[in-house]
Amino acid sequence: MGPKALDYESLNENVKKVQYAVRGELYLRASELQKEGKKIIFTNVGNPHALGQKPLSFPRQVVALCQAPFLLDDPNVGMLFPVDAIARAKHYLTLTTGGLGAYSDSRGIPGIRKEVAEFIGRRDGYPSDPELIFLTDGASKGVMQILNCIIRGEGDGVLVPVPQYPLYSATISLFGGSLVPYYLEESANWGLDVNDLRQAVVQARSNGITVRAMVIINPGNPTGQCLSEANLREILRFCFHENLVLLGDEVYQQNIYQDERPFISARKVLMEMGPPLSNEVQLVSFHTVSKGYWGECGQRGGYFEMTNIPPKTVDEIYKIASISLSPNVPAQIFMGLMVNPPKPGDISYDQFVRESKGILESLRKRARIMTDGFNSCRNVVCNFTEGAMYSFPQIRLPPKAIEVAKKAGKVPDVFYCLKLLEATGISTVPGSGFGQKEGVFHLRTTILPAEEDMPAIMDSFKKFNDEFMEQYEDYRSYSRM
Amino acid sequence: MGPKALDYESLNENVKKVQYAVRGELYLRASELQKEGKKIIFTNVGNPHALGQKPLSFPRQVVALCQAPFLLDDPNVGMLFPVDAIARAKHYLTLTTGGLGAYSDSRGIPGIRKEVAEFIGRRDGYPSDPELIFLTDGASKGVMQILNCIIRGEGDGVLVPVPQYPLYSATISLFGGSLVPYYLEESANWGLDVNDLRQAVVQARSNGITVRAMVIINPGNPTGQCLSEANLREILRFCFHENLVLLGDEVYQQNIYQDERPFISARKVLMEMGPPLSNEVQLVSFHTVSKGYWGECGQRGGYFEMTNIPPKTVDEIYKIASISLSPNVPAQIFMGLMVNPPKPGDISYDQFVRESKGILESLRKRARIMTDGFNSCRNVVCNFTEGAMYSFPQIRLPPKAIEVAKKAGKVPDVFYCLKLLEATGISTVPGSGFGQKEGVFHLRTTILPAEEDMPAIMDSFKKFNDEFMEQYEDYRSYSRM
Ligand SMILES: Cc1ncc(COP(=O)(O)O)c(C=O)c1O
Ligand SMILES: Cc1ncc(COP(=O)(O)O)c(C=O)c1O
Repeated sequence: MGPKALDYESLNENVKKVQYAVRGELYLRASELQKEGKKIIFTNVGNPHALGQKPLSFPRQVVALCQAPFLLDDPNVGMLFPVDAIARAKHYLTLTTGGLGAYSDSRGIPGIRKEVAEFIGRRDGYPSDPELIFLTDGASKGVMQILNCIIRGEGDGVLVPVPQYPLYSATISLFGGSLVPYYLEESANWGLDVNDLRQAVVQARSNGITVRAMVIINPGNPTGQCLSEANLREILRFCFHENLVLLGDEVYQQNIYQDERPFISARKVLMEMGPPLSNEVQLVSFHTVSKGYWGECGQRGGYFEMTNIPPKTVDEIYKIASISLSPNVPAQIFMGLMVNPPKPGDISYDQFVRESKGILESLRKRARIMTDGFNSCRNVVCNFTEGAMYSFPQIRLPPKAIEVAKKAGKVPDVFYCLKLLEATGISTVPGSGFGQKEGVFHLRTTILPAEEDMPAIMDSFKKFNDEFMEQYEDYRSYSRM
Repeated sequence: MGPKALDYESLNENVKKVQYAVRGELYLRASELQKEGKKIIFTNVGNPHALGQKPLSFPRQVVALCQAPFLLDDPNVGMLFPVDAIARAKHYLTLTTGGLGAYSDSRGIPGIRKEVAEFIGRRDGYPSDPELIFLTDGASKGVMQILNCIIRGEGDGVLVPVPQYPLYSATISLFGGSLVPYYLEESANWGLDVNDLRQAVVQARSNGITVRAMVIINPGNPTGQCLSEANLREILRFCFHENLVLLGDEVYQQNIYQDERPFISARKVLMEMGPPLSNEVQLVSFHTVSKGYWGECGQRGGYFEMTNIPPKTVDEIYKIASISLSPNVPAQIFMGLMVNPPKPGDISYDQFVRESKGILESLRKRARIMTDGFNSCRNVVCNFTEGAMYSFPQIRLPPKAIEVAKKAGKVPDVFYCLKLLEATGISTVPGSGFGQKEGVFHLRTTILPAEEDMPAIMDSFKKFNDEFMEQYEDYRSYSRM
């Protein structure tokens, strides 16, 4: 009898082709070491609470009350919960039929989609339509749904920044499409040159690929840059001329560490450009409760907003969302709270501001400590993290290290990161997991370890790195003898 | 310029092909009527809390505490939460790193997968391996992940019971595979005849389709039957001989209303059959927190367990799960609580038993009221609901009704269900949404409306139905004149 359907050799080839580095070899080795009792610093995933960030109190109070609505009738509820959290929980429960235990509409709870639309309207200065906003189990699921609609086969290409967050490469492989890379320029602080985009499209076309969509990650992961308004205009004009859907991954819009580079949404820029662009360019923008100062990754809440997407397509996306019934309801409430946080005058306002500011200010400091730390190391250079949660230093590996790595059957940056892990417990992601130019090596760390641990971590990194460099530079001279 | 990638005409054809009736025309019309102020009884989705079922207190207390872990340090916590809920919340928080706000391992929290394995071991009498259990955002997502691995293209077929729950037809379309129907026998209480299976496979083969997997839904949706042990043995033997992966959708395993027909898991039967079957047949079993007496649909929690799936394939499934990072964490805790409920002697035990028994006993009564109600109607016959949450009466439409429906451009059962909706507010799903034999018509309702509302609903149904039948039988005689 032949292989069975779930034997490796007979699996869907697209599944096998998927590469996913963030939880790849490094992560598996780190998990092993942890099991053996070694202390591991997981900086491989942007997962703030796992590294000790405390949840914001107010949203957790509200969602706890929604989970236990019987507490709302308890005369003692005021001993554990502030009145504005109680009022907010009641508000969200009235927006549902059946509370957190009932499937919602597959697009998400209408009342919460309205709150999201109002938030977008305030942020951008242009009204947004709740009917064009779908809530999702995190931004990842939204991105997958949209790419599933766009990709018809190998001949369909999607422009993706390189280095890129592997959600995109993995999803494009899974759906059998073609990734069309465009390179971000490290020497220009990871900026994006529209001429490169044009070349990438021409190149793809000559390979028989129709480019259908373009992804931007703003602020960038792993690269941390914020796109300027001028750059966004160029990108939108490019999408207009090339007839591309723009997917705007804006999950880090609240993670901004340099005042001169604020976040500007692709949608706001598009609206400001006016017709024909503002009513022609198809744009889908993604957001999440996982990032910002919320960091509520485990809740799995997100949304996408569609601009210039025809109603018949919206219906199709709705239908596909229906297959898995509904996004999880507790995270929909987190989304409502994120777009509609406590206001001045509310009892919880001061605490909320204190907590959220504390997190953002500390992230800003950590971004600085980390970049400076990397730049103090031998053969390491690192752009400043303008936004998001990552540092992406370039590691200039000596030729001998590259050679030894290759002999060991390892990609050189994987080799370096494994050594770093074994020596220090710091679990990073090799740059090759995000794609990079030939012969250039990086690693990605998050800036999330606790602020007070940061100096020790950077010391330990520096010690490892400088010894590593010494060893392989020495070794080279040694082997020359 | 040509169409854009998100214009309807240029979408992925597989997306467009998907049909999804549970939230189709009937549901949309019902939502419209509701907006216009009409009272709608939504019996289209198995969504118990939406129809008034109260959540079980203990699990909600535990998850509320996990959402608000700062309460655990509050000296007043005991005024609102029982000690065993507090202890359980602490237990689950120790199983995570970073609580509910952190992404978990993409397979789910190891400690909870261990609790699931222990539950399966107790249920079946055969140990289960936590490494082969993945937690998911509801059973739907698990089914989609597995079918994504199995289906390589149009030439790959999956045997699906007809009538079937449309998750399967929709997912198979979405991934571009071929649905191979096998018919359940209404006159044999929706039993399954293995000879029909064989014929279905032969027929598919003659159309160039390789059948790779078979789905069973046990207890059945929409048909409500429980498969007997003998029937399960035949099915497993069939899968062995035909080299098929068996997908066992067992989400209704706690919804059993007839003592002579208990639920038996496919896995238990497989293990009892011994080698070679027990170490050859590839089986994936699905479960959820959405059903049973929990009905926690909005939380989106589920698991799948793999039997005889090779480690390399498990790794591939893990990789694919990693793309969307992790299932939502609160629902993982619900799953832990579901497989490990309060025990005799725990403070919350009596209340838990009272609540859960209350729900199950009432469901049993409602199943009876509904079946009897349908069977008292003109031209309606209905098998008793042995399990799950649905009634699936056959509606014998008079030829004239069929003719009028066709003239109106409607499938006859859609026509009937729309009329029912307009007349009574009862929102059902036409049988054609689940597939059925040519010329036979059904509708599906859940048995979930509140017990006290049930008699009035059935009266209103009977009144509508009997008038409908009278009208079209009369009309026929009239039009003959
Ligand atoms: C650029 C980018 N997009 C999307 C996501 C996914 O976030 P979510 O947790 O909302 O799925 C991440 C997570 O790290 C990310 O870095
Ligand atoms: C047979 C069957 N399988 C799976 C599901 C999906 O359940 P979940 O909420 O776990 O995704 C349902 C939901 O109604 C169902 O009826």
